[in-house]
Amino acid sequence: MRDMLGREEVVTVEKALDILKKLSMVFPPETKLNIEHSCRRVLSRDIFSPENLPQFARSTVDGFAVNSSDTFGASDGLPAYINIAGEVLMGAMPDFELKKGMTAKIATGGMLPEGADAVVMIEHAQTIDEKMVEIMKPAAPGENVIRVGEDIKKGELVLKKGHRLRPQDTGALSGLGITEVYAYEKPKVSIIATGNEIVPADKDVKLGQVRDINSFNLAGLISEAGGEPLKRGIFGDEYSVIKKIVEESLKDSAMVLITGGSSVGTKDMTAKVINDVGSPGVLFHGVSIKPGKPLIGGIVNNKPVFGLPGHPAAVTVCFEQFIEPVMKKLTGISENRFRDRKLTVTAKMAKNVSSSSGREDHIRVALEERGDEIWANPILGKSGLITTLVKADGIVVIPLRKLGVEQGEVVEVRLF
Amino acid sequence: MRDMLGREEVVTVEKALDILKKLSMVFPPETKLNIEHSCRRVLSRDIFSPENLPQFARSTVDGFAVNSSDTFGASDGLPAYINIAGEVLMGAMPDFELKKGMTAKIATGGMLPEGADAVVMIEHAQTIDEKMVEIMKPAAPGENVIRVGEDIKKGELVLKKGHRLRPQDTGALSGLGITEVYAYEKPKVSIIATGNEIVPADKDVKLGQVRDINSFNLAGLISEAGGEPLKRGIFGDEYSVIKKIVEESLKDSAMVLITGGSSVGTKDMTAKVINDVGSPGVLFHGVSIKPGKPLIGGIVNNKPVFGLPGHPAAVTVCFEQFIEPVMKKLTGISENRFRDRKLTVTAKMAKNVSSSSGREDHIRVALEERGDEIWANPILGKSGLITTLVKADGIVVIPLRKLGVEQGEVVEVRLF
Repeated sequence: MRDMLGREEVVTVEKALDILKKLSMVFPPETKLNIEHSCRRVLSRDIFSPENLPQFARSTVDGFAVNSSDTFGASDGLPAYINIAGEVLMGAMPDFELKKGMTAKIATGGMLPEGADAVVMIEHAQTIDEKMVEIMKPAAPGENVIRVGEDIKKGELVLKKGHRLRPQDTGALSGLGITEVYAYEKPKVSIIATGNEIVPADKDVKLGQVRDINSFNLAGLISEAGGEPLKRGIFGDEYSVIKKIVEESLKDSAMVLITGGSSVGTKDMTAKVINDVGSPGVLFHGVSIKPGKPLIGGIVNNKPVFGLPGHPAAVTVCFEQFIEPVMKKLTGISENRFRDRKLTVTAKMAKNVSSSSGREDHIRVALEERGDEIWANPILGKSGLITTLVKADGIVVIPLRKLGVEQGEVVEVRLF
Repeated sequence: MRDMLGREEVVTVEKALDILKKLSMVFPPETKLNIEHSCRRVLSRDIFSPENLPQFARSTVDGFAVNSSDTFGASDGLPAYINIAGEVLMGAMPDFELKKGMTAKIATGGMLPEGADAVVMIEHAQTIDEKMVEIMKPAAPGENVIRVGEDIKKGELVLKKGHRLRPQDTGALSGLGITEVYAYEKPKVSIIATGNEIVPADKDVKLGQVRDINSFNLAGLISEAGGEPLKRGIFGDEYSVIKKIVEESLKDSAMVLITGGSSVGTKDMTAKVINDVGSPGVLFHGVSIKPGKPLIGGIVNNKPVFGLPGHPAAVTVCFEQFIEPVMKKLTGISENRFRDRKLTVTAKMAKNVSSSSGREDHIRVALEERGDEIWANPILGKSGLITTLVKADGIVVIPLRKLGVEQGEVVEVRLF
């Protein structure tokens, strides 16, 4: 975006998010998964129940299966005397029927015999001998019973397409005998580190060189957001080199992230590459956020491509603010404002922090307990320092038009 | 625990947690991990920096490296004229020195040449020709520079034992050239499903039988809490069978969970097994919580063993309330009230819910947005129904001495 004088103009956070929200992206392909490995995966199809759960009426307590009408009016003073027809064995269909005036011992989860419609808890019964029991409390029809299909009915929609499976959901699938599900593949996200000064983690550094920090940070962020990171490696600041690896990455990735490119002119090179590998290319170049201002957002053949600044703190802020919402879409997850929240805590700011109007400031903070209160200590180091993230517990956002936060002011801290 | 009449007495949630808090447990062994696979793992040793980060003074901006004293008093109206000695190449040590009155072009991340102590941003400089630049703003010593060791000093404690690694932490390790770390092994937790009526997920059910729900639910809960679930299988309600598998499980697990055991007398059997396989055995049998009252907590040879009720909702509630805190200890994670919080939302209860004094009620709720408000709809089905968990977004706790929650009352919902 350029202003009237042809200079590049930064967009607001709101505007950038708005642009990203409207992107039409390639939808992730689906894959078949055993439910053993399905936790946190996103369903690509609705799941309907193939059967009733349970398939028979079950007792929810230990006690006596009865025909409820036999217990009407029973009390401690005037118990109902009922004949014991037998005992329900666990895991088997009772081989007897309850006629009027008959009962059967039953345990939690046991199948009600034909003729029974309720269960009296063992606490309200007193066996006289092997053949007879006193019932001291009436049971209503259906009392202490799970009816056929009461948990899940045959044909019922159990879980919706776009739902991310939680432990209890895999339990329900197991209960229905559904051992395989269709889920979206985890979106593959390529990480391209650039910079002539960058060397891999396992190499010694010479003066002038630094090791790659951003690839590891990004890989972790991508994994936690439900994606599959592909570290493409470290590439020198050369147009043809970067263009080639971006093109290659676009072939098998759902999204491409380019970090760094810190030498003079390289910033424009990343934008040029994004424009040259396909259309429409760059959507915005520069956002009024700190850290993270140099962020480039683009889309190429319906695949998002981001150019991230090289500063580690800027990488984290840009990821959480702009890339994570895009990643979520790519996972196929349906929007649910409750299930995908970020952890936050309310704290008091421990120091005055100033901010410029016209940009959104993301302040890293370390939390501290003082008695019953939580205080947020701002970590004011340069955004090029990885320790500003390592020492921090979370981030406080100072909005666009706010000029700072005063000591003691109550703030919302988004935890890492 | 038995009361004066020798009857078994349930303990309060508080008392049960207190008992569990005091347990001395077997500490997890450590293992060496490549940082590629270290995210979310817990460090078993402190990590000190082997070197300074960075090892040389770096520029944080694109501009001109200067001797700050050469720029004093410089302004738009009266710029300082300085000779260009050369350009700093990225990733290399400058092969020249800055004498007084000299400057060098430098990019973000570039190494300051000998003699330079600050960088003037490109926005505040105007090149006249290849040999000379006008500086329009004074630079203070150290301005726009990351000093040697400013991010991390050699020998500095970077990350503490007991810390769970986050994406940015692996980035810092990479930056320091630390590619392997010592971490605690994930605690192995055995899951033993019991019940003559239980069949595996991949088997057809006959009348009287139900498929195993709890093993899958528990496996997911264990994984998400940082453990490694070991599904031991499904076992019939027989003392010797259960005793044998508990003994086997204790050999290679840090914790053992037994679920179900729903036939009459089986509940006591689980307690008997826990008492018989080692000492001290059962610590409490029954907790004043709903669902989850039949929970058995024990410890055998410093390894926690729990007997969980068979009802799916009770399994989840007991896990979150009692087992997860024990699991956390087993992961070796150091306590941090901020970093290990549960997501909660504040909502209004959509219906009256009554509760008995003398027990803690855990009400499953589905959340609903009504305009700007969030409302919690209680799901009041029996705790034997897995769908009460599947349809729920979280849990509202009604404390011991509270008799219920009224419609419209503000509640805290702990999200799954």
